[in-house]
Amino acid sequence: MAQKITKRSEDYSQWYLDVVKEAQLAEHSPVRGSMVIKPTGMALWENMRNALDHMFKETGHENAYFPLFIPKSFLSKEAQHVEGFAKECAVVTHSRLKSVEGGVEVDPDSRLEEELIVRPTSETIIWDTYRNWIQSYRDLPILVNQWANVVRWEMRTRLFLRTMEFLWQEGHTAHATREEAVAETKQMLEVYRSFAEEFMAMPVITGVKTASERFAGAEDTYCIEALMQDGKALQAGTSHFLGQNFAKAFDVTFQDKDGEHKHVWATSWGVSTRLIGGLIMTHSDDSGLVIPPKLAPKQVVIVPIYRSDEEQDLVLAYGNALLEELKTKGIRAHMDTRDTYKPGFKFAEHEARGIPLRIAIGPRDVQNNKVELARRDTFEKQLTDRDGIADTIANLLETIQNDLFQRALQRRNDMTTEVESYDEFKQVLDEKGGFIYAHWDGTAETEERIKNETKATIRCIPFGDSEGGKCMVTGKDSPKKVLFARAY
Amino acid sequence: MAQKITKRSEDYSQWYLDVVKEAQLAEHSPVRGSMVIKPTGMALWENMRNALDHMFKETGHENAYFPLFIPKSFLSKEAQHVEGFAKECAVVTHSRLKSVEGGVEVDPDSRLEEELIVRPTSETIIWDTYRNWIQSYRDLPILVNQWANVVRWEMRTRLFLRTMEFLWQEGHTAHATREEAVAETKQMLEVYRSFAEEFMAMPVITGVKTASERFAGAEDTYCIEALMQDGKALQAGTSHFLGQNFAKAFDVTFQDKDGEHKHVWATSWGVSTRLIGGLIMTHSDDSGLVIPPKLAPKQVVIVPIYRSDEEQDLVLAYGNALLEELKTKGIRAHMDTRDTYKPGFKFAEHEARGIPLRIAIGPRDVQNNKVELARRDTFEKQLTDRDGIADTIANLLETIQNDLFQRALQRRNDMTTEVESYDEFKQVLDEKGGFIYAHWDGTAETEERIKNETKATIRCIPFGDSEGGKCMVTGKDSPKKVLFARAY
Repeated sequence: MAQKITKRSEDYSQWYLDVVKEAQLAEHSPVRGSMVIKPTGMALWENMRNALDHMFKETGHENAYFPLFIPKSFLSKEAQHVEGFAKECAVVTHSRLKSVEGGVEVDPDSRLEEELIVRPTSETIIWDTYRNWIQSYRDLPILVNQWANVVRWEMRTRLFLRTMEFLWQEGHTAHATREEAVAETKQMLEVYRSFAEEFMAMPVITGVKTASERFAGAEDTYCIEALMQDGKALQAGTSHFLGQNFAKAFDVTFQDKDGEHKHVWATSWGVSTRLIGGLIMTHSDDSGLVIPPKLAPKQVVIVPIYRSDEEQDLVLAYGNALLEELKTKGIRAHMDTRDTYKPGFKFAEHEARGIPLRIAIGPRDVQNNKVELARRDTFEKQLTDRDGIADTIANLLETIQNDLFQRALQRRNDMTTEVESYDEFKQVLDEKGGFIYAHWDGTAETEERIKNETKATIRCIPFGDSEGGKCMVTGKDSPKKVLFARAY
Repeated sequence: MAQKITKRSEDYSQWYLDVVKEAQLAEHSPVRGSMVIKPTGMALWENMRNALDHMFKETGHENAYFPLFIPKSFLSKEAQHVEGFAKECAVVTHSRLKSVEGGVEVDPDSRLEEELIVRPTSETIIWDTYRNWIQSYRDLPILVNQWANVVRWEMRTRLFLRTMEFLWQEGHTAHATREEAVAETKQMLEVYRSFAEEFMAMPVITGVKTASERFAGAEDTYCIEALMQDGKALQAGTSHFLGQNFAKAFDVTFQDKDGEHKHVWATSWGVSTRLIGGLIMTHSDDSGLVIPPKLAPKQVVIVPIYRSDEEQDLVLAYGNALLEELKTKGIRAHMDTRDTYKPGFKFAEHEARGIPLRIAIGPRDVQNNKVELARRDTFEKQLTDRDGIADTIANLLETIQNDLFQRALQRRNDMTTEVESYDEFKQVLDEKGGFIYAHWDGTAETEERIKNETKATIRCIPFGDSEGGKCMVTGKDSPKKVLFARAY
């Protein structure tokens, strides 16, 4: 399998597609821009979803489900929102087909009175619903999340990173005060940060977007930004403080404790199957996918090696006992008993699919009460005692998880540069890429100029204090350095 | 709350809608025919989904995800399939909106070359995909399931029972032989039967549909049929043997062990949020929802009762210790500490929402080391020792689960009649309703006549042997009695 994967150094984009293919995560579908998520990819997404869902519930959120279709008129109610999404909407106009010679055609008599938009995001339909759910301060806060598919008509798509239809979660909360809504926005960003770092082993920078990069309809967009191996940034999750924009657009008010009627404060926040793209480009290598153990659908694969029937019986019995012991310990283990493939083929296949740990067992291991462990991330092998193997492996999986994070962090730090001048900025960008901290005067004009001249964008204004200085382009005052990169 | 629910004897349809509303399960959305599934309804669906998903995985299935949109031409490839779905399709024709004075309009320049259908079911897109997944017998079987939303343009909708968009799962499997595909179809029907009976406590009859009630594109449709309290039947799940129809339509062949190229055999099977409607109409009463404990998002609610601050401290401490003990036992318990509502109001609310068991605790209970348990299903109360309460409650929840099933089974049996003549058939149907077993000559004509004259349909031809006889309408030979009912 491994030789089917293009080297990163040769063609990074092709490498990415090869990894997705050989790991059997997803493939293109006949509907342009849509993907088929294959069972291995779906199992990975389910693990990510379950971990996130648990974190959402721990922070007091409940799931609900809102309609796929949004009346066209709803989109127009929030001016910036429609501006942001109008140009990439799938529009349903008819409700029937009719048979004609050689196939079916749209039945012109089934034209809808009002067209329906396939949701690109659900703020409008949800705030229309919240109007009926909220009368009094007693009805607040509303802390709701939705797991759903959404559609944005993208012209240039890439599996997981940018697809016309994608799976995501979108949280939509309603609050009595600005302070509470801002606190929620920040809390959910922190949930995303800790998920990215603790589960995906993907270090992220947190901060706030500039006005031009904000979600359409938000007062502030907070984000987590990760750095991929090729030195490009990936926006991995966003949490929006929506102010009272949607409450005003949909007339959602509540009677406060003081008897006054006030508009409700809102947040929304989301991550999507795009995270899988981020995970791939954070850890994988020229042999294929590398998955952090916490998210791996299969954490351990046992490959039995034998020549004779007698050896087979011996090795499989040894392997089955081992398998049971690992499962009992809660380790997601699997034995590859296919007799149509040789061990070497299996090794390459499991490497391409990113299983964190491989156990090879042969007749001699049975005799010596040993197993051979091979780490996917480092390819290190070690011959280990069979006794206490479940604990050994549990610890090793934890080590792998930590090592993946530390290596990714080290790489990000190595690829992060602080610059003082625009010349230095351009030089670093072209020669090294990565994250670049630089002073910026805070204007959209300068941001736009930098983007046009270098293709780098401001990924975020990081949280926390830093020293003031002068904008690298205009020399005007800048309160702090901001984070630039070329991005996916 | 309770008085807001119409009595079943007064207006069964309104009772159903009232239960859905007061239990906060779902509500109508501004998009005609679409519903909003509220957090309580979604938590119930998630419990159902998790139980089913576990059963699917135990039988070797994996989840995947296929595109929401299906090219129009795909639908036409299987003649019966397009016939069945063409008249209820949401059709996407454009990909952009543009701003006009006062709002947005569909941009006529964004007209798609080929229209896209929002999936009413996914056989076509999936079999188009399987063509690339299957070359050899080694690639079979494919055992894939998808959790997804689907859209069927229904004119007359009712929350959960029939909605334009609904959530469901659809299994799509591919096999080398007819026998294996038939076995899979039956296995999944058995999964549905055991889920319905063991989790939903809803007894079902299994059997096969007549040709006229078959899924569009199937050779055989197996089903589970439940009987609602009002004597109407509900088709609760279907499992289809698709023969080679889709393999031929999409040219999916494999090279068999004997070297021959053969068409693949297929099944598909699904259940949907419609099951929630079935659950409601199986167990609920004039006080609201009744949920079987195995599926209840909250199994136990503790209501503390006190007058003074001192009593409050005492009772809440007692309640918290109780809550922890129940949670430790794995019981989904919750304490209702809201001080804005009185106990009587809370009792009615929890009844309307169907929480299986209520625990009321007051100062005297603390003193006597007792708790008062009240069953939602029977309204029976018992004063119980505090000691060993977690075991007591775990056992009681199991008893409630079993009692719900037994009562539903008893009711179904009471409402099932065998008849010998068409006159008797019509009389039973009008006076009693329910399931009716009667002889039928096996022709579509007779089936159609009975449907037109009585609104009763053949729910299924039950599995197993039974005595032959004469058709109640035509007097022609009939190999066995079949199951009739008026249905949702």
